[in-house]
Amino acid sequence: PGKKVLIVYAHQEPKSFNGALLKVAVEELTKQGCSVTVSDLYAMQFEPRATRNDIVGGLHNSEAFNYGVETWEAYKRRGLSKDLVEEQKKVQEADLLIFQFPLFWFNMPAILKGWMDRVLVQGFAYDLSKAYDGGLLQDKLSLFSFTTGGSQEMYSKGSISGDIRYILWPMQHGIMHFCGVKVLEPHICYAPAWVSEEKRKEMLTAWTQRLKTLWKEEPIDCSPDWYFK
Amino acid sequence: PGKKVLIVYAHQEPKSFNGALLKVAVEELTKQGCSVTVSDLYAMQFEPRATRNDIVGGLHNSEAFNYGVETWEAYKRRGLSKDLVEEQKKVQEADLLIFQFPLFWFNMPAILKGWMDRVLVQGFAYDLSKAYDGGLLQDKLSLFSFTTGGSQEMYSKGSISGDIRYILWPMQHGIMHFCGVKVLEPHICYAPAWVSEEKRKEMLTAWTQRLKTLWKEEPIDCSPDWYFK
Repeated sequence: PGKKVLIVYAHQEPKSFNGALLKVAVEELTKQGCSVTVSDLYAMQFEPRATRNDIVGGLHNSEAFNYGVETWEAYKRRGLSKDLVEEQKKVQEADLLIFQFPLFWFNMPAILKGWMDRVLVQGFAYDLSKAYDGGLLQDKLSLFSFTTGGSQEMYSKGSISGDIRYILWPMQHGIMHFCGVKVLEPHICYAPAWVSEEKRKEMLTAWTQRLKTLWKEEPIDCSPDWYFK
Repeated sequence: PGKKVLIVYAHQEPKSFNGALLKVAVEELTKQGCSVTVSDLYAMQFEPRATRNDIVGGLHNSEAFNYGVETWEAYKRRGLSKDLVEEQKKVQEADLLIFQFPLFWFNMPAILKGWMDRVLVQGFAYDLSKAYDGGLLQDKLSLFSFTTGGSQEMYSKGSISGDIRYILWPMQHGIMHFCGVKVLEPHICYAPAWVSEEKRKEMLTAWTQRLKTLWKEEPIDCSPDWYFK
């Protein structure tokens, strides 16, 4: 109780299974006494493109635009665009970040990747020699909750799509761990479009059940061993 | 000579090192007699968000929007939005797809991920039981050419960022191989921002040199062994 949760949600349709997963998470966490904020990216028409528009006022170097340098400088002088400042404030206040999305091409949808690209700028999320265990977003937890098109068997070692953990490396290690955020076990709903209504209900119940004891979970050891062993 | 190349390019600044890599590729391939098309995503203000706007006219199921189903149906009745149809035409005509971009968070920038999400729809790039070696974009080659912030040492096995090949799995195997496209060795320029002007010139020359004999290269064996051994 009293914990703050930010759910970054990337699905176009509230009636989708991702929408249902979002709903039960908000309900269960609120019931626990957590304060829950949702960034509903499609509803917000969140901008995924990293451009000059993200910097208010003049550029550090207007001769040749370098997004990483410019957003770093803009962060330091409080010159990032309003939508980014708002997302950063939500991240700053959160104890737990949940990312809820359908897997698209072995990865998160572009709109969510754009949230990562634009919100987690240098100075805010990491800095020179402040990365991984030294990242700037320490004392926070993250959890990737997503649905797949393929079945669990298709995402196992030796099958054509490979171990699902291979796919988690860039997201969990390359982004969250890089920023110093601890990573909880992912929550994966395999192929909800291909199972019975009954099975889908079980999946929703399982998510609620997991959230009940979430705060007692230990983060994973976010090292290559976890992903590729 | 006579080969058709599509370069999908994702950098905001023509004067960047990515811009220079694009320029030498266009020059060298044109010199060889290839026909080169460039999709300059930022200049085109390419839309990365997968939304209802991608479908012209009525929806297959307007009760609950499912992007995968709707774009599949729209593809079959030639009802995809104009920008997608144009990109698909470029892909269809190409013998080789080159993706030129800076690595952003262990991955491609959101604007390029949006190109993958929106252009490679079911019916066009793959279909029911037509994936991987049976994918619909056979007889095409692909090549991921990108720059990194970190050094080559940082992207080697046992170092904190892990083997660079871990990062290539979702892009090369999960997208290109899935669509039946063969994958050439990636072309990686490590940390151009941190090396001398002389060294950067060498990198540009090396890219030109590689392109001279590119058509004689054999595709990689796009299996887990290549990535995780």
